[in-house]
Amino acid sequence: MLEKEIVKTQTVRLFSAKNPFQFECGAQLPEITVAYETYGQLNAAGDNAIYVCHALTGSAHAAFYNSPEDKIPGWWHNFIGYDCPLDPRKYFIVCANILSSCYGTSGPNTIDPLTKQVYGMNFPATTTRDMIRIQKALLDYLGVKRLACVVGGSLGAMQTWEWLVQYPDFIEKAIPIAGTAKGSPWMIALNEIARQAIYNDPNWNNGNYENTPPNDGLHLARMIGMITYRSHVQFQERYGRDRVKNEPENYFDFKNWFQVESYLHYQGDKLIKRFDARSYVYLTKAMDLHDISRGFASWETTLARIQSQVLVIGISSDVLYFPEELQTVCQQLQDLGKDVQYVELVSKFGHDSFLIEYDKMNSIVNKFLNNK
Amino acid sequence: MLEKEIVKTQTVRLFSAKNPFQFECGAQLPEITVAYETYGQLNAAGDNAIYVCHALTGSAHAAFYNSPEDKIPGWWHNFIGYDCPLDPRKYFIVCANILSSCYGTSGPNTIDPLTKQVYGMNFPATTTRDMIRIQKALLDYLGVKRLACVVGGSLGAMQTWEWLVQYPDFIEKAIPIAGTAKGSPWMIALNEIARQAIYNDPNWNNGNYENTPPNDGLHLARMIGMITYRSHVQFQERYGRDRVKNEPENYFDFKNWFQVESYLHYQGDKLIKRFDARSYVYLTKAMDLHDISRGFASWETTLARIQSQVLVIGISSDVLYFPEELQTVCQQLQDLGKDVQYVELVSKFGHDSFLIEYDKMNSIVNKFLNNK
Repeated sequence: MLEKEIVKTQTVRLFSAKNPFQFECGAQLPEITVAYETYGQLNAAGDNAIYVCHALTGSAHAAFYNSPEDKIPGWWHNFIGYDCPLDPRKYFIVCANILSSCYGTSGPNTIDPLTKQVYGMNFPATTTRDMIRIQKALLDYLGVKRLACVVGGSLGAMQTWEWLVQYPDFIEKAIPIAGTAKGSPWMIALNEIARQAIYNDPNWNNGNYENTPPNDGLHLARMIGMITYRSHVQFQERYGRDRVKNEPENYFDFKNWFQVESYLHYQGDKLIKRFDARSYVYLTKAMDLHDISRGFASWETTLARIQSQVLVIGISSDVLYFPEELQTVCQQLQDLGKDVQYVELVSKFGHDSFLIEYDKMNSIVNKFLNNK
Repeated sequence: MLEKEIVKTQTVRLFSAKNPFQFECGAQLPEITVAYETYGQLNAAGDNAIYVCHALTGSAHAAFYNSPEDKIPGWWHNFIGYDCPLDPRKYFIVCANILSSCYGTSGPNTIDPLTKQVYGMNFPATTTRDMIRIQKALLDYLGVKRLACVVGGSLGAMQTWEWLVQYPDFIEKAIPIAGTAKGSPWMIALNEIARQAIYNDPNWNNGNYENTPPNDGLHLARMIGMITYRSHVQFQERYGRDRVKNEPENYFDFKNWFQVESYLHYQGDKLIKRFDARSYVYLTKAMDLHDISRGFASWETTLARIQSQVLVIGISSDVLYFPEELQTVCQQLQDLGKDVQYVELVSKFGHDSFLIEYDKMNSIVNKFLNNK
């Protein structure tokens, strides 16, 4: 590892009153603020760029450190960095906070310049297609002529699929990981219970809150999510039936959590300190609305648009985006003669394996991306 | 089908001040009311009885009709009845509402005779072992000398496992279906998010409510449960990405549910009309505390107690009690020389298949129970 490298998150305002951003839902905004980070240098041809799409609660801070005091690097730091598959000495890597998130890019928790109030639920409904159209505008602004690769896991994979269909001739390679080309009813069901947990919080108030956010609701939404990001095998190995207090006299005490309960509550506590419930509602809805074929004549004509070389990574223990869902779309693409391969990351860690199993994932990605 | 058969739910008070019911947690109550139904006649030897253990939100009303006006028969009516595996012309079938439920048997929503108030969270913590000890007292009261079979699905299977260990020489055959011998951390995690949904409801008030129950919380708890009772394949086939309103102008409307969301909300609405949130908390906690080996020297010595012929039914698409969990305990029992077999019910309907796939299940059970 080289010296601790500092990369600041930058912001840029894109679009204008003359050229407003047109949401898929029909609404438009004259200005979108985008928070982003870049690692490495864009080459003269402008074609060594990699765009990294982040997941539900991610941010632009994908790698390295924002300040010398930071103890924890970016969220994908073992995947992006020196001697990693996404090496900034070779690639110009860009990651931006997604539309409707709460880490610097415009969304329901930013101030509406017209009313001087937080947008709240007045912010336009957001889709994965909206997200990647803004990412394209950012890449244009940065001078990128062509993407060597677009990559992302979970909601990041959904954006990757949209990239492939919306800008087919702009992308050399793509790696959607543990995420589907359209949202399944299983995922929608799980997202709806998370949203309902937020809606049930009296502090939700239809998104009209300032100092008293619906923390109990967001806490529970995160607990729900965390279960689906892991697996029963991992829970068994890690927590078993261990209790917080192991004395026999505490055995029947309702308040004496099993360790797995304590873990979920801990994750809930962590998220409410760093995330906004409105963004959680908007982004889970974007996942539900996600369907790369929207507006096209058929599923087949949609897939037929794809021109890139695609590596689809499924995770064997994923209970949110089951491997067979990803295999199915790969098979459909292969039947259309597309250059698509499916590789399964075999892991017990479930959906989140793409943030945990770096040895396995980096090996799979290096082969595809860097021919090594 | 014969004429519409009417069976009334009966109640009996068991135990007494001199012989109180001793809960596993140490508390005791002088009297336990038990609501139960029976189908068929006990033979002279008292050994043709089958005990049916019900699941989380079930009741004693397992089969036939409670009144001529009833349109819907008992919850396991295609499994219990004439020409069904549990045929009342052959067996004396007993099903009682479980301890801490809300269908007539004592629990947290019944009146404490001392305070004249609802017990609420003052009701003793309840375990599956407590449940089956009360069931044994009921069978003694009814004159049953020996069980030809004990059978149940889900939480009913957990009780069946407890029966096997607590009363090994009382049981000829047993059929635990889609339920484990001890609660897994995966199940505990899912139960905790359901409980947390209830706790987050301002009407919960630590179980102190009368006319304003925490319906929003219980509604959400049920939505969470329903996801885990089904499967992603069944959701895909049944609901796909269909919307309640399918017009394009409603596409981006947050309130225009996908059909799968509408289904979950419908199930939530149904449950709050018939179930009590306190019982939901007590019974899910009983599932978490469930461990047949509690108090015994080891897991092996616990399993070694079992003397019955056991058919374990796992469900291929069950994401709550994964087939491999059931296979593991079967293997352990077989290694101890026990007469145990595992059969997998192959279905796309998930955990709830034991309430849906009667053709498959009845065929499996008939072979084991009735040699046909």
